[in-house]
Amino acid sequence: MTRDLTITGVRLTPILVADPPLLNTQGVHQPYTPRLIVEVETADGTTGVGETYGDAKYLELARPFADQLVGRRVSDLNGLFTMADAVAVDASRLSGQVDVGGLRGVQTADKLRLSVVSAFEVACLDALGKALGLPVHALLGGKVRDTVEYSAYLFYKWADHPAGVACEKDDWGAAVDPAGIVEQARAFTERYGFTSFKLKGGVFPPDEEIAAVKALADAFPGHPLRLDPNGAWSVGTSLRVAAELGDVLEYLEDPALGTPAMAEVAARTGVPLATNMCVTTFAEIQEAFTKGAVQVVLSDHHYWGGLRNTQQLAAVCRTFGVGVSMHSNTHLGISLAAMTHVAATVPNLHHACDSHYPWQSEDVLTERLTFDGGRVTVSDAPGLGVELDRDRLEFLHRRWLDDDGTLRDRDDAAAMRVADPEWVTPSVPRW
Amino acid sequence: MTRDLTITGVRLTPILVADPPLLNTQGVHQPYTPRLIVEVETADGTTGVGETYGDAKYLELARPFADQLVGRRVSDLNGLFTMADAVAVDASRLSGQVDVGGLRGVQTADKLRLSVVSAFEVACLDALGKALGLPVHALLGGKVRDTVEYSAYLFYKWADHPAGVACEKDDWGAAVDPAGIVEQARAFTERYGFTSFKLKGGVFPPDEEIAAVKALADAFPGHPLRLDPNGAWSVGTSLRVAAELGDVLEYLEDPALGTPAMAEVAARTGVPLATNMCVTTFAEIQEAFTKGAVQVVLSDHHYWGGLRNTQQLAAVCRTFGVGVSMHSNTHLGISLAAMTHVAATVPNLHHACDSHYPWQSEDVLTERLTFDGGRVTVSDAPGLGVELDRDRLEFLHRRWLDDDGTLRDRDDAAAMRVADPEWVTPSVPRW
Repeated sequence: MTRDLTITGVRLTPILVADPPLLNTQGVHQPYTPRLIVEVETADGTTGVGETYGDAKYLELARPFADQLVGRRVSDLNGLFTMADAVAVDASRLSGQVDVGGLRGVQTADKLRLSVVSAFEVACLDALGKALGLPVHALLGGKVRDTVEYSAYLFYKWADHPAGVACEKDDWGAAVDPAGIVEQARAFTERYGFTSFKLKGGVFPPDEEIAAVKALADAFPGHPLRLDPNGAWSVGTSLRVAAELGDVLEYLEDPALGTPAMAEVAARTGVPLATNMCVTTFAEIQEAFTKGAVQVVLSDHHYWGGLRNTQQLAAVCRTFGVGVSMHSNTHLGISLAAMTHVAATVPNLHHACDSHYPWQSEDVLTERLTFDGGRVTVSDAPGLGVELDRDRLEFLHRRWLDDDGTLRDRDDAAAMRVADPEWVTPSVPRW
Repeated sequence: MTRDLTITGVRLTPILVADPPLLNTQGVHQPYTPRLIVEVETADGTTGVGETYGDAKYLELARPFADQLVGRRVSDLNGLFTMADAVAVDASRLSGQVDVGGLRGVQTADKLRLSVVSAFEVACLDALGKALGLPVHALLGGKVRDTVEYSAYLFYKWADHPAGVACEKDDWGAAVDPAGIVEQARAFTERYGFTSFKLKGGVFPPDEEIAAVKALADAFPGHPLRLDPNGAWSVGTSLRVAAELGDVLEYLEDPALGTPAMAEVAARTGVPLATNMCVTTFAEIQEAFTKGAVQVVLSDHHYWGGLRNTQQLAAVCRTFGVGVSMHSNTHLGISLAAMTHVAATVPNLHHACDSHYPWQSEDVLTERLTFDGGRVTVSDAPGLGVELDRDRLEFLHRRWLDDDGTLRDRDDAAAMRVADPEWVTPSVPRW
């Protein structure tokens, strides 16, 4: 009965995947974005997969971490954190500032480590599930729902990347005004059945984004709406937007930057505030919760340290009467499967999760995950229930190998400078 | 590979086990105390065991709960809580007061339900582990230590139960003064190797208990000491004891009753306060942590709802900089094994756990668990690593069947009235 769950090999494959010209307050997505695919293999031949950020600073951590993993068991998940603590982080890689590319709060060595651990944790859970004949959700205590709801992640975008750069063409067209955003929302609804909508804001002056959300409210009356300017606004602007949109917003996401500013906004509006920027680690919770700065924490298993940490975050939120849902950065199907498994196990998940997945035309799976009625069905197959397409992985890895280094670290400001050489990353608050 | 983990049968066996005449602020332990042994059996013939409180109010909940369990899978642990919510609780069973027998905070329907769920959760984990060939700690993410430290749980006690009652004889002798407590501590050290000591207080006037702890400090210099009067003291008395014993106490446990009183004590002493009475559910955490009422939460997987909830509690404590360790009520080897498995997985366990186990001369296992150097070795055998002794179980169940009902509900005050007919449960604060 007992199978040998000892890890005998770990493979790290950095890749570049196509990304549309999506706009945010820092700039625009580059035509290709780095991801790291992690595979663990056990003595009995089972493999498990995980994915995380693929920028150089993650790769540098992942390599020594992977070396330490060999000889351990895939079931030894609590031990991953102790292991990670022992991996040195190059301090020069830490800006001490809000992570420009990721738009996901201040960067710290611990957060980098957890972002790497998460890919290995997911890969171990995938391998463990396959070896035991159990889906990942069963390894997390079992699903409490059969499908997980996602929201349409709307972006201001250009029709094309700036002329002259190598890129894949997307079929979404431009969206730079309220009509364009409504049109994009309709396409999301038609293609995937989403019924709630999040707009990435912080791109245009607040009045334009207020108009876009109002246009969405008119086009989709009664549907949950969210606006996320990634902390681009002052407290005053945040309150003005909240007042204008209070009737139609499910929540306002990171209107202002940092816990003190968020607390000030929260104290003066009835609109719930969500965050994936001021509460991004367990260490940030106490201050934010004590000050009532956030009403919904948007977990991201990548930087919270995996699926089991996400469950623990949900327990902390439940204990303090704070809502929980899920944030998304650019990700592929492995992570969507992982998000779906853990989301299925969290009883207090009362908001549709975010996912960039519809924007990613490329994947490393033999079969893409699908949204039906805006929902992903929770897989009951062993492990994550996904299969790696080795040819695709190799193709996307070759793209990474062939890159001259300019795309191996996500840099939305650099991408913007291709179109606008005068562009500088806006200081915060921008408005 | 895949085994059928569907639950096909559940067996509930109430038993009475011998208990020495241990004193607490409510009275004295009865000569026999009720426990409930839970067994789940899966379609492939695997069985798993759990134990919890055995009083009538628990049995009444356990029976309908057990009926609902059949047809579900032992891996479906998150679903147990939803199931439990659907089981009706007889409100007349709820005192709304501090639980007299258990000395474990205010009784609520939810807490009763969780106390029942925990036995089933442990039984399911045991069965799941056996079916998969994995120890329970591996199902909880893997151990981060190979042994778990326990403390000697010292009690004021009589040599014998009151004359005329049927009972088992114990070999511990009496301990009703400082010399007796030190002697008992020495016996604990010699028999089990414990190096930290907890005295159950609230029995004698505070000065006598202060003297006993000072005698322990003299006899075992530098060893961690704890005193637990189960909330019997006023804030003023608590502060006086804290001042007298501040130099030798690792922590003071539940000196006063309820979060406001504990917060008042905590604000005025540097001695850390531990609790298993004012924080006994997730709902009680926010107020207590926000007020700084407790510095260490003593988890009890029985009433927190199982091993996975205990891990979540530990995560909440870690997030808020509050310590965590484990409380114990009367329990047998199944629960000691369960406590050891979960304790092995909690990174932030910085205090030795409590256990009544040395006081229980009877068990339902083929082989008792042992303490070596005050520690229990974490089992790597599949499941909990314990085996039920059916003959012993039947013997102890027969005792329960033969009882006329007087011992089926633990009642320390009733036991005290056998010796002292005038005894009434002391009002709180007693001193």
